[in-house]
Amino acid sequence: MPVNLNLPQAKPVAGVELATLSAGIKKDNSPDMVLLRLSPDSTCAGVFTQSVFSAAPVSLCRTHLPSCAGNVRALLVNSGNANAGTGEPGLLMAQGHCEAVATALAVSTDAVLPFSTGVIGQLLPDELMRRGIDQAATLLDAPDASSLGAWQAAARGIMTTDTEPKLTSQVCQVSGKQVTITGMAKGAGMIQPNMATMLSYVFTDAAISVDDLNRALVEAVDVSFNAITVDSDTSTNDSLILAATGSANVELSSSGSAGDNQRNNDWSGFMQALTKVCSDLAQAIIRDAEGATKFISVHVAGGKDRSECKQVAYAVANSPLVKTAMFASDANVGRLLAAIGKAGVACDPAKISVSLGDVLAFEAAGIAASYTEERGAAVMAASEIELFIDLAQGEANATVYTSDLSHDYVSINADYRS
Amino acid sequence: MPVNLNLPQAKPVAGVELATLSAGIKKDNSPDMVLLRLSPDSTCAGVFTQSVFSAAPVSLCRTHLPSCAGNVRALLVNSGNANAGTGEPGLLMAQGHCEAVATALAVSTDAVLPFSTGVIGQLLPDELMRRGIDQAATLLDAPDASSLGAWQAAARGIMTTDTEPKLTSQVCQVSGKQVTITGMAKGAGMIQPNMATMLSYVFTDAAISVDDLNRALVEAVDVSFNAITVDSDTSTNDSLILAATGSANVELSSSGSAGDNQRNNDWSGFMQALTKVCSDLAQAIIRDAEGATKFISVHVAGGKDRSECKQVAYAVANSPLVKTAMFASDANVGRLLAAIGKAGVACDPAKISVSLGDVLAFEAAGIAASYTEERGAAVMAASEIELFIDLAQGEANATVYTSDLSHDYVSINADYRS
Repeated sequence: MPVNLNLPQAKPVAGVELATLSAGIKKDNSPDMVLLRLSPDSTCAGVFTQSVFSAAPVSLCRTHLPSCAGNVRALLVNSGNANAGTGEPGLLMAQGHCEAVATALAVSTDAVLPFSTGVIGQLLPDELMRRGIDQAATLLDAPDASSLGAWQAAARGIMTTDTEPKLTSQVCQVSGKQVTITGMAKGAGMIQPNMATMLSYVFTDAAISVDDLNRALVEAVDVSFNAITVDSDTSTNDSLILAATGSANVELSSSGSAGDNQRNNDWSGFMQALTKVCSDLAQAIIRDAEGATKFISVHVAGGKDRSECKQVAYAVANSPLVKTAMFASDANVGRLLAAIGKAGVACDPAKISVSLGDVLAFEAAGIAASYTEERGAAVMAASEIELFIDLAQGEANATVYTSDLSHDYVSINADYRS
Repeated sequence: MPVNLNLPQAKPVAGVELATLSAGIKKDNSPDMVLLRLSPDSTCAGVFTQSVFSAAPVSLCRTHLPSCAGNVRALLVNSGNANAGTGEPGLLMAQGHCEAVATALAVSTDAVLPFSTGVIGQLLPDELMRRGIDQAATLLDAPDASSLGAWQAAARGIMTTDTEPKLTSQVCQVSGKQVTITGMAKGAGMIQPNMATMLSYVFTDAAISVDDLNRALVEAVDVSFNAITVDSDTSTNDSLILAATGSANVELSSSGSAGDNQRNNDWSGFMQALTKVCSDLAQAIIRDAEGATKFISVHVAGGKDRSECKQVAYAVANSPLVKTAMFASDANVGRLLAAIGKAGVACDPAKISVSLGDVLAFEAAGIAASYTEERGAAVMAASEIELFIDLAQGEANATVYTSDLSHDYVSINADYRS
């Protein structure tokens, strides 16, 4: 059961068509292939896993992006098999599938980006993939390929151990016209994205240059997908794509002149909406994390820079002892101190303060005089827990979102082959 | 149930007397205080946690060591309460307890080193501690205070969530005389020592200078206590003391001249025995790790330096997904690749090879041709698992020891207040 996973309602983005089907990669006949077609002249930006063992499709995305960022035509996603740790055969196969999509849709191979998620270290079933691609290409011509239902089916089709699909939208006004931003994401374990999450696709119908898309993506990712962790494990397949179809006939640019207030307002409105979509999706991944019973926000303030705040926040968010205490609703201030202490950030314990929700627990190198176990326990009993850590040595801050470590996390990962 | 925890038999070290009792710090009346008296002119060396939140007794040890390294007289250990996160009151209390020991044993306060382990963030019960210290001082004068039974009782008295005491010995020959090295350790969770483990005390009856003791300790710790992890969590109280009583009337020195073969052989024999004691104790901590069902050795070879080998080994050993796969006896090569990939060490996936025991699983960027699930599964079924990772870019190597992540780890840490 996800923890309070209630995303704002999704809306289709004009210029995107989606086909979802079961190609037979997953053994249970559930949907495992999604093909997305973008209207001509769509732009895109992407960020990918920093893992040394990045998967074959990630390598291909990196190869194709420079030529297709200004004209991307299709995204091919399969779940059930990550095509990672598969060497040259895996790379050739992914390339072959891009060619199959290109032929079926009459676009260039470079304009197709491939994505895979699932079991690592096994070759994809080539025949099933090719049959699925041909079938998906036909489905894209159906009238409902751009319906809300098609979006909802796609969000399901990219899932692995997720229990719920993650799809959401925001709108903003640009030059008096409405622009839509819609994103989907999957991921529930092996989650500490390093530049991206497992798989996420965000689309807008505004027309935006590749440079501006890249700028927007990096900014939105820093506070969303690059601020979450389930288990400190970074996947081999993390990929996040932001694409702009331009179908709303609205041009949007970050470079408004100083006096161009309208343009500046438009861009900041867009960034606000985009950041909300990315944050909602990233937090949805944590709410649906493997075995999660709590949604925990670790806020670190008073750092010298944002990087040391994130370092402390991740040390707390990844501590198995903190996470099991959260599972037990135990107001275990000692484990928080131990996690802060091991983070590798120079700071003065005498200045640090720690609060559980609005209850001050630790200050002046000791348990706060006003603190009682009862007050701490009341905060920990909730399914949403906020931890506040003040390093009191600067002005920077950062927040990292995580889940607790439960029996179900162990069961899921002892039983599931990822 | 610890995993194959069978330590070589312990022997008392001359010049050490031990008293163990229940001072009432633990609620269940189990032993929670150990007082150790060392003969005059005993030398000692120590390494301590690198946590920013180091506990009050760790601070005091750092203050006392410079003056008592050449003449340490007593170690006071309590379990059940870590005296960490207790600020100035905790520090004053620890200082008061050192003074109480000094008075009772008629030694200087600086010659007493204090150690605490247990719950973080609560003040010690001062009255109970002082009453216990007086009682322990009396017990030290009993005839059996240097018996094997006294050593065994002490190894129990320092335990918290350990299920078995950890006490072991090695002997070596120095100038034709026998020298004994005996050590004890405690720790089962919050274990990724950073320069030391939770609590460990190692004694020898040789006479060794403070400089040589420090040299010997750093060398032995690198391959023992600083090569283990249960849960990546570094404690606020990690302390390791190596003390030499000189009671065997044998002088031992590291600085044999080039031609002094006898002396060089003596030192290397001593280092071999000391390293064995430290490794056996460190590995015993992993064998008795919270919820452990497997003992896992992660060997990384072919690194440019030892540090990058350890970094990869720790990334694997700390990965919750690797650890849950080990618990499930799942030959999950993909999770090993993902953990190596996220370690932050630059390396070429096409050169890396991975073996499960003697079964080659991954090479040339893909699953090895000779690998089968059955062969991998046979290795994983055992309670002792060896993983071999070859980075193939240098001559360095390192090994890290860890346990699996089981349901019992979650249960123990959701129920126990550390």
